Amino acid sequence: MKRTDGNHQVILAKRPAGLPQLTDFEMRMIPLAPIGPDQALVQIIWLSIDGFMIARMRPEENYAAGVNPGDVMQAYGVGRVTQSNRTDRHVGDFVFGPFGMQQWAIDDGNPMTRTLDPAFGPIQSALGIQGISGWSAYFGLLDVGQPKPGETVAVSAGAGAVGALVGQIASLNGCKTIAIVGSEAKAAQTVGEYGYTASVVRGSSDFSERLKQAAPGGIDVYFDNVGGDLYDDVLECINTFGRVVVCGRLATAHLTDTAQDFGPRDHNTLLVKRIRKQGFLVSDYAARFTEATSAIAAWQAEGKIKLAEDVLVGLGQAPAALIRLVTGGNNGKQLVRIAE
Amino acid sequence: MKRTDGNHQVILAKRPAGLPQLTDFEMRMIPLAPIGPDQALVQIIWLSIDGFMIARMRPEENYAAGVNPGDVMQAYGVGRVTQSNRTDRHVGDFVFGPFGMQQWAIDDGNPMTRTLDPAFGPIQSALGIQGISGWSAYFGLLDVGQPKPGETVAVSAGAGAVGALVGQIASLNGCKTIAIVGSEAKAAQTVGEYGYTASVVRGSSDFSERLKQAAPGGIDVYFDNVGGDLYDDVLECINTFGRVVVCGRLATAHLTDTAQDFGPRDHNTLLVKRIRKQGFLVSDYAARFTEATSAIAAWQAEGKIKLAEDVLVGLGQAPAALIRLVTGGNNGKQLVRIAE
Repeated sequence: MKRTDGNHQVILAKRPAGLPQLTDFEMRMIPLAPIGPDQALVQIIWLSIDGFMIARMRPEENYAAGVNPGDVMQAYGVGRVTQSNRTDRHVGDFVFGPFGMQQWAIDDGNPMTRTLDPAFGPIQSALGIQGISGWSAYFGLLDVGQPKPGETVAVSAGAGAVGALVGQIASLNGCKTIAIVGSEAKAAQTVGEYGYTASVVRGSSDFSERLKQAAPGGIDVYFDNVGGDLYDDVLECINTFGRVVVCGRLATAHLTDTAQDFGPRDHNTLLVKRIRKQGFLVSDYAARFTEATSAIAAWQAEGKIKLAEDVLVGLGQAPAALIRLVTGGNNGKQLVRIAE
Repeated sequence: MKRTDGNHQVILAKRPAGLPQLTDFEMRMIPLAPIGPDQALVQIIWLSIDGFMIARMRPEENYAAGVNPGDVMQAYGVGRVTQSNRTDRHVGDFVFGPFGMQQWAIDDGNPMTRTLDPAFGPIQSALGIQGISGWSAYFGLLDVGQPKPGETVAVSAGAGAVGALVGQIASLNGCKTIAIVGSEAKAAQTVGEYGYTASVVRGSSDFSERLKQAAPGGIDVYFDNVGGDLYDDVLECINTFGRVVVCGRLATAHLTDTAQDFGPRDHNTLLVKRIRKQGFLVSDYAARFTEATSAIAAWQAEGKIKLAEDVLVGLGQAPAALIRLVTGGNNGKQLVRIAE
């Protein structure tokens, strides 16, 4: 590997009006300056495509700084250190960090950036099963959802990177699991590959009826990656003292107008059923990421947990990868490979 | 006191279409049969008027059995035992129980019914500060809301029976308190009599702005007795890691059509701010009612907590009392006195 004479980047050209379109992005090439003191140069190999990117493109207040038109699109990545003036990085190290959608990144000690131990498996695992997706599933399910053996756990986007892991961790905890998915292919995959007890395809008029058939004893924990009106349908099936983990909002993150005429539809049901609904951000658990990574790696080594990877190749494919994620076109963890 | 030759009752004549109207109720007089073995006869003196009654009149599934047209309206009451074939009740005992809106009730050992200790103060306290209202405030705030000293607690229906006690208990725990109320008179009362730090009258176009001024550091616990679109306005002010106690739903309990075009408006905010929103029913804490009663009575004895009583006189006033409660016309605990 050698340093090229330029850095190709994916830029947010304009804020999406609704779902992001390819025309909301553009490619740019900038010269790569020499690294300074306490900096390392990282050649990015893998980009992670995650649902949180959608809300980051919006102007509203969020839990983290957003992307403005003209900025490099945010993305977590895994890469290789090719030059280093840092004592904690060595040429050849593989590193994980919030590097953005670009070929080269400067590692200047961002606390999120860390050196990877290749003993944990393929380096891109740090973006999925051993990274944000795995941690989100682990803490969101176990700490917020608190499933008990014998309970039923339903997961929206059940074949997605977080969802597929939630289903498997719930099964490891002795729960029945219901995947809510967007296609018959994913329904078959969630049961066949991820071991869900049952799966239900959303979007048809008899969804509620089929969900009730799949969960005849009701749902105790709803791990929600989607929100929107799907949540209202699932809510009917949630048992008294159920828990809703609000982990994602794929159905609503892109909306420019969420105004409605009346209050939240879930208020009555939460009251009647004493349901706890709690927002959740995996970043709050940063001090315990190592715990989660070790637990997941142990399950992985025993063949008890796995995650499909869906790889597009080339930096220019990154916007398309994001659109695939939002529209449900991906299979498991969405990655973009941008270097060998 | 002597037994009359009939029992006047308030009957649900038909299910309300929207807010209850006087014409939804009718009076009936039935003969009073002799009591049987293990029964006591109770002359009801005080009726409690509570927000939960609204939803009980609706046909939808609820957490407790509802009232059907032709049934005696449900209500908690306090009365005097005038005859007894029960070993646990003696003539002259004062008892609390789910006696309904009527002059006379049979006490046949319903587990909710209990003999009152007049040492705890006026017997009607068992319907308010030392009863359902007090327990709802105590457990809802302390167990579900979990306020920490220095935090800000906002309370909708802040001058109501539950709300007024929530505000005072929150103050006793070292919190700043904001009453959200329906009139300027209640705004003055909540600050002047119940010791709220500030109060804000709902319903005006600048409500959100005034709430932000009253809670410049944001709201950490929202004790919600109301729901509806007020909740959406308050939600904007709730801090990250805030808690919403869903205790009541005065704004929506009467609605016959809660259908909306889209999912819950709070989903995004709960996620971004990691807010916990939890339904709450005081009946789940029945095993700890004595703890709450003792704590409240001790505060009462020290002059640290109080609750205004709003009394209408005569059984025929019970429907009007309920309508007052829903429309915010009451001041503190709404009671109906139906006997001396």
